[in-house]
Amino acid sequence: MEINIDLGSRSYPIFIEKLRKIDLDSKVAIITNPKVAGLHLSYLLKNISAKELYIVTVPDGEEYKKIETINFILDRLFDHKLDRKSTLIAFGGGVVGDMTGFAASIFQRGVDFIQIPTTLLSQVDASVGGKTGINNRYGKNLVGSFYQPKAVYIDTYFLKTLPKREFSAGVAEIIKMAVTFDKDFFEWLEKNSLEDKKNLEYAIKRSIEIKADVVAKDEKESGLRAALNYGHTFAHVIENETNYKRFLHGEAVAIGIVMANELAIKLKLLSEDSANRVKKLLKRYSLPTYYRIKDINDFYEHFFLDKKSQNSKIKFVLPKEIGSVVIRDDIDENIVKEILKKFNQG
Amino acid sequence: MEINIDLGSRSYPIFIEKLRKIDLDSKVAIITNPKVAGLHLSYLLKNISAKELYIVTVPDGEEYKKIETINFILDRLFDHKLDRKSTLIAFGGGVVGDMTGFAASIFQRGVDFIQIPTTLLSQVDASVGGKTGINNRYGKNLVGSFYQPKAVYIDTYFLKTLPKREFSAGVAEIIKMAVTFDKDFFEWLEKNSLEDKKNLEYAIKRSIEIKADVVAKDEKESGLRAALNYGHTFAHVIENETNYKRFLHGEAVAIGIVMANELAIKLKLLSEDSANRVKKLLKRYSLPTYYRIKDINDFYEHFFLDKKSQNSKIKFVLPKEIGSVVIRDDIDENIVKEILKKFNQG
Repeated sequence: MEINIDLGSRSYPIFIEKLRKIDLDSKVAIITNPKVAGLHLSYLLKNISAKELYIVTVPDGEEYKKIETINFILDRLFDHKLDRKSTLIAFGGGVVGDMTGFAASIFQRGVDFIQIPTTLLSQVDASVGGKTGINNRYGKNLVGSFYQPKAVYIDTYFLKTLPKREFSAGVAEIIKMAVTFDKDFFEWLEKNSLEDKKNLEYAIKRSIEIKADVVAKDEKESGLRAALNYGHTFAHVIENETNYKRFLHGEAVAIGIVMANELAIKLKLLSEDSANRVKKLLKRYSLPTYYRIKDINDFYEHFFLDKKSQNSKIKFVLPKEIGSVVIRDDIDENIVKEILKKFNQG
Repeated sequence: MEINIDLGSRSYPIFIEKLRKIDLDSKVAIITNPKVAGLHLSYLLKNISAKELYIVTVPDGEEYKKIETINFILDRLFDHKLDRKSTLIAFGGGVVGDMTGFAASIFQRGVDFIQIPTTLLSQVDASVGGKTGINNRYGKNLVGSFYQPKAVYIDTYFLKTLPKREFSAGVAEIIKMAVTFDKDFFEWLEKNSLEDKKNLEYAIKRSIEIKADVVAKDEKESGLRAALNYGHTFAHVIENETNYKRFLHGEAVAIGIVMANELAIKLKLLSEDSANRVKKLLKRYSLPTYYRIKDINDFYEHFFLDKKSQNSKIKFVLPKEIGSVVIRDDIDENIVKEILKKFNQG
């Protein structure tokens, strides 16, 4: 299966299939981490030919997504004398993808890069949208660029070694896409299991198509693209409160979806029945749907740390029944806190 | 005078005139150095209004054009809580401009920036082309991005305090533009003095128009834009051999132009008479036209350190009579060394 991401001169294809042969008439550096390299590098190398090929290994984990690691990658590229015509390949999950894209965007003012995402989350999410970046002490993804890959290769073979929790975290983003943009897809997800390879490939394809459609309409995130943050306004606070340790990102998003749905019910945007269907689907993939908020006022204040909350207004992305979405920045503090109280129990 | 740089959705105006009032309905950070701030900040501040205004001062000098200074700038932006809608203003010469543009391109994945160049070199050269970047231990401008400003304000008032040597270094780039692209402009330069404010404004305008025309045709430097490197292939080696201390960049370019012309004479592209006219114009602005090469073989080897020399071929930009240019990567080593020998005397 092939999807074309239409961005004018920066358009690129996404292939969802058994990894095809990649022939590059340039110097190539594969950026990966030791875990992915150990499991899958030999499989990848069988499918790549290049003029010269180098492997750059960076430590695994969100805490290494920082400027020091970017400098390390750049230094290796200079050591190996890569030039403006060289190509970087991101081989790993979201962290490797975000950093490789960022390094590619600033090495010699920009070189080509290819994404081969190895987690479900990065396959459905990070491979579309051109967001690259790193964290710093002020927050997540605060430094980076918008930079598009030349191609994305998605092979579900890599997911066989993915821990079950990480797989489910990826499913949370798929469910997010369905609830906000595509009722038919949501109902398909209710009826079909993602354990099946063909189903999984279809769900990845559909999620990417939805995201691609949104991103093509709003590349630099001025309006519509914010809708992709459904569940994320809450998730970011949960991740922050738990120091990014207790939940995987997709797990926090699952809880955030449930919270956003409660707010949508209160505002009469969503029926209780629909909210229950979403929750049931999340639970089927063992995703968490509850987080005990310790202090409601603290939680509320943390919304304002999010860089997306400009001018001290919090943007809530809320489902308008299943399959469409509204963005609201005018919701009364008391109403939000009333919802937060429901997660302040037990 | 106003020039529009036509780059589709990333088009921007360049104003060449007394600084006009700049009204910004956003948070603004002015990035400058202590020298420029001391001389001209009050003049600038009289002409700016913003929602909130911050000054970030970075040390003056090419040796500070490095990742640590970028991190310092970014930290100040986060400290002052600048957001995605904020604007950076580069207020200084090429170093400040290159770093501010780079910081703007990666802060929160890209914010607006405005250039107010205060040296002749940055007015004619750095304000067009979208090149941003920093140096590292592997070389100059090896990390950076292509990122366009929202507007450039050029006021020759700032040049009144510019040291004479720096003024002349800027003139070298103006002469470069004339020799490679515009015979009429070259003859105009022979007849008119840049001491005169109106003449100077015209020469800046004409240089920018020429560069803008080249850049519009070749934004990412795949072909034509390389022609702007006339004199630079030699200049980079000279700067490298003298540790970037003995010559200002424009001075090294002046010598590089003379060297390139000698090669062009040898290849029967340029007449001796034309070469002498170029040399005479350079000398009128007290620009150096000779550099004593110590070791010809060393000098030749240093060509290959330049990132623009891909695949071990050296690209020479040579005038084809005054007003046009050819790029050649097929020149025999012995011919080049024969020319270098002319600079191996005295």
